[in-house]
Amino acid sequence: MSAEMQKCMEDCHQCHMICLQMAATHCLEMGGKHTEPAHMRLMLDCAEICQTAMNFMARNSAHHAITCRACAEICRACAASCEQVGDMEDCVEACLRCAESCDQMAAMAA
Amino acid sequence: MSAEMQKCMEDCHQCHMICLQMAATHCLEMGGKHTEPAHMRLMLDCAEICQTAMNFMARNSAHHAITCRACAEICRACAASCEQVGDMEDCVEACLRCAESCDQMAAMAA
Amino acid sequence: MSAEMQKCMEDCHQCHMICLQMAATHCLEMGGKHTEPAHMRLMLDCAEICQTAMNFMARNSAHHAITCRACAEICRACAASCEQVGDMEDCVEACLRCAESCDQMAAMAA
Amino acid sequence: MSAEMQKCMEDCHQCHMICLQMAATHCLEMGGKHTEPAHMRLMLDCAEICQTAMNFMARNSAHHAITCRACAEICRACAASCEQVGDMEDCVEACLRCAESCDQMAAMAA
Repeated sequence: MSAEMQKCMEDCHQCHMICLQMAATHCLEMGGKHTEPAHMRLMLDCAEICQTAMNFMARNSAHHAITCRACAEICRACAASCEQVGDMEDCVEACLRCAESCDQMAAMAA
Repeated sequence: MSAEMQKCMEDCHQCHMICLQMAATHCLEMGGKHTEPAHMRLMLDCAEICQTAMNFMARNSAHHAITCRACAEICRACAASCEQVGDMEDCVEACLRCAESCDQMAAMAA
Repeated sequence: MSAEMQKCMEDCHQCHMICLQMAATHCLEMGGKHTEPAHMRLMLDCAEICQTAMNFMARNSAHHAITCRACAEICRACAASCEQVGDMEDCVEACLRCAESCDQMAAMAA
Repeated sequence: MSAEMQKCMEDCHQCHMICLQMAATHCLEMGGKHTEPAHMRLMLDCAEICQTAMNFMARNSAHHAITCRACAEICRACAASCEQVGDMEDCVEACLRCAESCDQMAAMAA
């Protein structure tokens, strides 16, 4: 497995963890804009697609570019939602790092 | 939730179940071409992306078209692999039905 | 696969779907007690363990009794939380049906 | 979140990754005892319950002891299966470390 794929799996893992943790703790405890349905759904969407993209790479799937592309797109949407809500800097950063990493993986597979 | 989305979630569920069941029982018990790494990985890939696409729809996610498109693409690849291996008719059928359903969902969201 | 296991997988699927859907739509839209952290976490916990228990059975796992027992316990806790929150009758019913089904599967495997 | 829970989540992640990777690459490529149905199913079972136990902790779930206990039990079974198959030392080690970590988490919650 390439170093790039190893890094991408780790970025997916970090983004999965921070999105799931923040949705289920920080956001639910803060309320207000943090529990706005569109934001909460996107946090859970992002956590799940990161997990799925990581699992495809762990299986050394021939089709990991498809899930990496989907993951990059959803991570960018989640970063934008977190910026708008505010007080979610760690999540913004993890989402953007994961998006970039997944874009690179998809480009390398093309 | 629209009737089309309800149907698409059901098609994803059926495809998830048949891919996971056949990979873990039929394929592993048959051996030979059925346990060829590329085929087995694709069966597991397909089961997982179907689950993810279904969960996005269950959350009424604004981004379900992304995972539906990814799901359709992987289902088609899985159907082709199952046809090549042979003796996997139920799986071919479930994959093609799910691919068509996911394509429709993605088109409706565009 | 036995008819009992087939039924249990279907009960897990229904419980997974209703918990995930209601958490991400009904609960987030209602707010108040419906988005209380402990309740929302439990809805997501229940959705995930139902999915996991179903996947173990789909793989015809020799260890499905372990995940069925865990699932039954979490479903009962989720049903109790839904009753306390109120206005969650469908979810209460799906959780109790799944708990009973999982208990039966675990007992049959003992 | 406690340092013990942080460590347990990391041990679950490592075990999830190594089980999924080895099942989908090493085992499928080796064939023979490595693709024996009971062994392959258990590798996939172990990967999934580790993921689920980790996600419960990420949500700071009040019910994480239930999934930690289930995870420890399945990790021990997977370690035993890997020892019997042979040539799976990394997996044995990750499973036993995760089992111990999950047992501790469950005990702390009791």
